[in-house]
Amino acid sequence: MSRRYLHPVLPAPGARLLLDRAASHHLLEVCRHPRGAPLRLFDGRGREALCRLVGVEGNLALVEGLQEPRESFSGSWRVLLLALCKGPAFEAALRMACELGVGEVRPVLAARSNLRRGNEDRWRRVLEAASRQCGRATLPALAELSPLPVALEAQGLPAERWVATPTAPLAAHSGEDLALLIGPEGGLDEAEIAAARAAGFTPVGLGPLILRVDTAVAAALARALG
Amino acid sequence: MSRRYLHPVLPAPGARLLLDRAASHHLLEVCRHPRGAPLRLFDGRGREALCRLVGVEGNLALVEGLQEPRESFSGSWRVLLLALCKGPAFEAALRMACELGVGEVRPVLAARSNLRRGNEDRWRRVLEAASRQCGRATLPALAELSPLPVALEAQGLPAERWVATPTAPLAAHSGEDLALLIGPEGGLDEAEIAAARAAGFTPVGLGPLILRVDTAVAAALARALG
Repeated sequence: MSRRYLHPVLPAPGARLLLDRAASHHLLEVCRHPRGAPLRLFDGRGREALCRLVGVEGNLALVEGLQEPRESFSGSWRVLLLALCKGPAFEAALRMACELGVGEVRPVLAARSNLRRGNEDRWRRVLEAASRQCGRATLPALAELSPLPVALEAQGLPAERWVATPTAPLAAHSGEDLALLIGPEGGLDEAEIAAARAAGFTPVGLGPLILRVDTAVAAALARALG
Repeated sequence: MSRRYLHPVLPAPGARLLLDRAASHHLLEVCRHPRGAPLRLFDGRGREALCRLVGVEGNLALVEGLQEPRESFSGSWRVLLLALCKGPAFEAALRMACELGVGEVRPVLAARSNLRRGNEDRWRRVLEAASRQCGRATLPALAELSPLPVALEAQGLPAERWVATPTAPLAAHSGEDLALLIGPEGGLDEAEIAAARAAGFTPVGLGPLILRVDTAVAAALARALG
């Protein structure tokens, strides 16, 4: 797979631009990308362009467009409501949601969330790295952290809604249009599950065992691929 | 969820035994488990027992059985052929396979495996920790690392066989009886996919994007839940 970097503007064929410091460092110092070799830029809004490295100015990589930018996979309408939990599991869940094509992540604060504050900058970097690696051209949208009751009443949720719940029947195949609520380590409490049901979420199960947050996100989104 | 530890023998009601050093340390020092409070022991072969902490001898926790040991979820007949790759992704994939109920893991050496040697002791610890956490009573069996061509010809593979392949049609619902082959970072090469097909594996896809190894394992096993 060729290397991919996020860049807000894509070059037309023959046009040149400088990558930012982080992308240049990765391309030149970490990867030792050869002059003339291809790479891809994506704009985070649905398009990507095949380019090549033509030189270095200061510490920055100079790249040239090779083809007209084109549309690429840009995520689905699936919305993930993901309960805040400690770093590694939450970040692995973000990465996996990105790989499995989720369109938007809405972090929510649940009763058993073992953190109380978000780290949006870091989460954005996780989503950017995952998008780069998995070949999608649009970053998942990232909403601000909100309390679960607020998120359940928010506008713009798809009509089909699942809440992962240990003893519920297995999640069945879904269309593109899905809101998925995943609780923190320790799960949603009974009042939260009742509130989700009242907001139109159907309890769905993911097998007989207790899943970690990242596994639950990947499993539920995979069950909804269609 | 109550605490769970692996112990080769389960106590009858009223019988007492000492936990090993690692379990005792976790229970007494890390969790500061109160005297009298319940915990569970599982034997790794399909049974678990509700117990309680009754004391400490030396540094070891003394526990007493409260109920007759009973059968618990003991994994399925699904067999995961998992290509060796670097530590964190491979170990996350082992953990997720355990949570999603896989019965046996057979590590395989693929052309693009970026490691050449296994670490079975460490893998066993990962599977043990995951089994403890996810509530299963039987550890997944762990085979020795073998070259992919050998693994493809091995005895005891279920009749239904999937190989995760980027552009293939979506994996469909499966029965309990499944062999799943997941390649390393960078994927299986064309000769390997051809060899897998010749050995009865059907290429199945997991969406339009490039998945990391752990995501692919969780997604494919979730598609096969039924």
